[in-house]
Amino acid sequence: MTSIITPRTLKGFRDYPPHIMIPRERILETARRVYRSYGYAPIDTPALEYLEILSGKGGEESDKQLYQFQDHGGRHVALRFDLTVPLARFIAQHFNELGTPFKRYHLATVWRGENTQRGRYREFMQCDFDTVGTRSVQADIETALVIHDLLRAIGFEDFRVHINNRKVLNGLLDVLGLRDRAVPILRALDKSAKIGPEAVCREMQTAAGLTESQARRVLELTSLRGENEEVLCGLEELVRGSPLGEEGVAELRDLLSAVGAAARPQCFRVDVSIARGLDYYTGTIYETFLEALPGIGSVCSGGRYDNLAALFTRQELPGVGASLGLDRLLAAMEELGMIEGVQTPAPVFLPFFESTRRNDYLRLAALIRAAGWGVEFYPEPKKLAQQLKYADRRGHRVALVLGEEEFQAGRCRIKDLKSGNQVEVPLQDDAAELIAALRRMLD
Amino acid sequence: MTSIITPRTLKGFRDYPPHIMIPRERILETARRVYRSYGYAPIDTPALEYLEILSGKGGEESDKQLYQFQDHGGRHVALRFDLTVPLARFIAQHFNELGTPFKRYHLATVWRGENTQRGRYREFMQCDFDTVGTRSVQADIETALVIHDLLRAIGFEDFRVHINNRKVLNGLLDVLGLRDRAVPILRALDKSAKIGPEAVCREMQTAAGLTESQARRVLELTSLRGENEEVLCGLEELVRGSPLGEEGVAELRDLLSAVGAAARPQCFRVDVSIARGLDYYTGTIYETFLEALPGIGSVCSGGRYDNLAALFTRQELPGVGASLGLDRLLAAMEELGMIEGVQTPAPVFLPFFESTRRNDYLRLAALIRAAGWGVEFYPEPKKLAQQLKYADRRGHRVALVLGEEEFQAGRCRIKDLKSGNQVEVPLQDDAAELIAALRRMLD
Repeated sequence: MTSIITPRTLKGFRDYPPHIMIPRERILETARRVYRSYGYAPIDTPALEYLEILSGKGGEESDKQLYQFQDHGGRHVALRFDLTVPLARFIAQHFNELGTPFKRYHLATVWRGENTQRGRYREFMQCDFDTVGTRSVQADIETALVIHDLLRAIGFEDFRVHINNRKVLNGLLDVLGLRDRAVPILRALDKSAKIGPEAVCREMQTAAGLTESQARRVLELTSLRGENEEVLCGLEELVRGSPLGEEGVAELRDLLSAVGAAARPQCFRVDVSIARGLDYYTGTIYETFLEALPGIGSVCSGGRYDNLAALFTRQELPGVGASLGLDRLLAAMEELGMIEGVQTPAPVFLPFFESTRRNDYLRLAALIRAAGWGVEFYPEPKKLAQQLKYADRRGHRVALVLGEEEFQAGRCRIKDLKSGNQVEVPLQDDAAELIAALRRMLD
Repeated sequence: MTSIITPRTLKGFRDYPPHIMIPRERILETARRVYRSYGYAPIDTPALEYLEILSGKGGEESDKQLYQFQDHGGRHVALRFDLTVPLARFIAQHFNELGTPFKRYHLATVWRGENTQRGRYREFMQCDFDTVGTRSVQADIETALVIHDLLRAIGFEDFRVHINNRKVLNGLLDVLGLRDRAVPILRALDKSAKIGPEAVCREMQTAAGLTESQARRVLELTSLRGENEEVLCGLEELVRGSPLGEEGVAELRDLLSAVGAAARPQCFRVDVSIARGLDYYTGTIYETFLEALPGIGSVCSGGRYDNLAALFTRQELPGVGASLGLDRLLAAMEELGMIEGVQTPAPVFLPFFESTRRNDYLRLAALIRAAGWGVEFYPEPKKLAQQLKYADRRGHRVALVLGEEEFQAGRCRIKDLKSGNQVEVPLQDDAAELIAALRRMLD
């Protein structure tokens, strides 16, 4: 007897069995549908790229996390760690065929050799969409609308897209003559939720060299709260005199007017406290929170950047985009009871009783599939109890009970597998009444 | 000025720009829909696995093609080269939660360090579906039906699923007392299309040690042609006296009766000449040919196996499945003019004329999206000619021409971007007439 290799996965990697995969696929399909509805087009790029292409962009921390090796030809290669660097490489390489503005979505796996102690996975999916090649605020507006439509299409009604604009803070720093200290200031502000405003105030003084009154002015801006219009007026006040700051507030105002016209205004909130990324974003910034579970953090984030692909082309490529946090969103939906947990995509279960009727079962299953429902036909004529146990475990919604007697009498019982209720319907050649009954029970 | 990294992909790897990716996604979505309609459930597994798990199964040739390396923790790991070994590992690992019969589909990328001279890619997608844990011929029948439904759903009417059963040839070899030479005989038969029957006949004598009359008997079987019933009768004749051979013919007959009842009988053909794989398949075998392009080879192939996961568990796991050849099918569709080649998933293009009407455009776009069509709204109020050039290049089907004058008059022109024809419709608050006109033009 040969020895058995213990079946196991690598640390930080996961299998996706059906009950996990079914809701994942549903969200991915929803994301594709919403992205497409705005004219974003799908692309894909290789999982493996030249190490040179992937390294150097994200800084030392991400370089260390790259899965890198030498391939059969001795080339230094690595697995992609995000979809942004591949997008930059892709657009630089195909710029002439693509043209701008170029709107793409990309749903794909990325790999990072992260410390799994922090509950992070080493393989996960990203769901990005971006508009590249335009500075128009219309692209920022559209990005906010996509986030709105996406969350609704997935099944959420109560969520808030928090919107900020990097130009506002930079405008205030201009007013205060502190523009050159933006990075340490942002770094301090980024810790706000963790360490509180007083500690942030101290850090701005110690790490960025601000006076206490300067630090208080910065804090005043980032702690503005209230209705959108109220916050916008407060910001206008604070950045007055800085063209950049005024432009930032005007962009925010414009964006809110537009999304309020085309979507539900209550879903959008100006939030000057969000400060995603230290030096990548340059304009609008987005984070999205679920009202029912704010603590899990943003489920869809992004922003505007000035130049996507400086590593690969001298062509300047401004753009704006965001990314759905698939794993976080699924965890939230699980917690909120929004996931059924079934192991089958087919609502209808067709037990196999009478061997001699096999072709009749197959014909019936084909009719139900043509009407739009998945049907699982059990492969062996086993005892009904055993087949129903299987159906129950899988999570089928109804079973069609059809033995020789039913075939001869021209009728079929539909058993609701949750409630146990049964209805009996006539069974004609075209199964029209059965299909009508399924429509009532399943749709 | 910093130096630019030349944007490029690795040899054997491809980018998928929108005009390539749009039809790919359409086929993948069709495959998921058809697989689901039979109750196959999606799974996914990691791209990276322990080298030990992936090596050793496929033989030296595939081991050599494995992308393997040591990860950050010094583990020997490799990228999956197919979806069968991961399925075996997955079922062995999760057997108790999954239960059998277990029906799964898995659409995912695999990597092979192949010789690219042969036009092969080193990264490609596989689209497998399998039923594991049952010996019932019903699973074989269902596999044939899935192939049938899948090809039709993708858009083909004229195709043939060629079906063979490994037991038939083995039965004849039993009758001739040649069962122990099955491997060299199959190896010779596999070359039939390339070298012709006479050379195969000689090879069976030289390489497998058959007498000339034995070799002729084998050739007689594999060259049977004609109507299904005719071929089945001929096979029955040849394998008479071998229980295994008779079982094989009975299974073929049973399968043809069933698929003839539930699908279009003319799509299925008994073909004793197909001999996929030398030692993996043990029962039914499938290959699928397009009538319009038989030369490109099988676009969907598979078969029945006795034991999926012997490497990972002592649990015996018989099963049957097949795999859609995505790249080959797309190449065929391209050649047959079945692919539009558009660069956008949105049929409707909405030019942006009047800055002051921006929110009106956005509201209108939202209404059209809610009615089910994708709308691309141009992000900047540029000249109409420039915007239409963009739309034309992308492949949008209609443009909505709406300037200040049209807004005031409450009307909208719909321009068919292929024919250049225009129709004018009233523009109400709910865009009902516009949507009705789009339905006539786009559906």
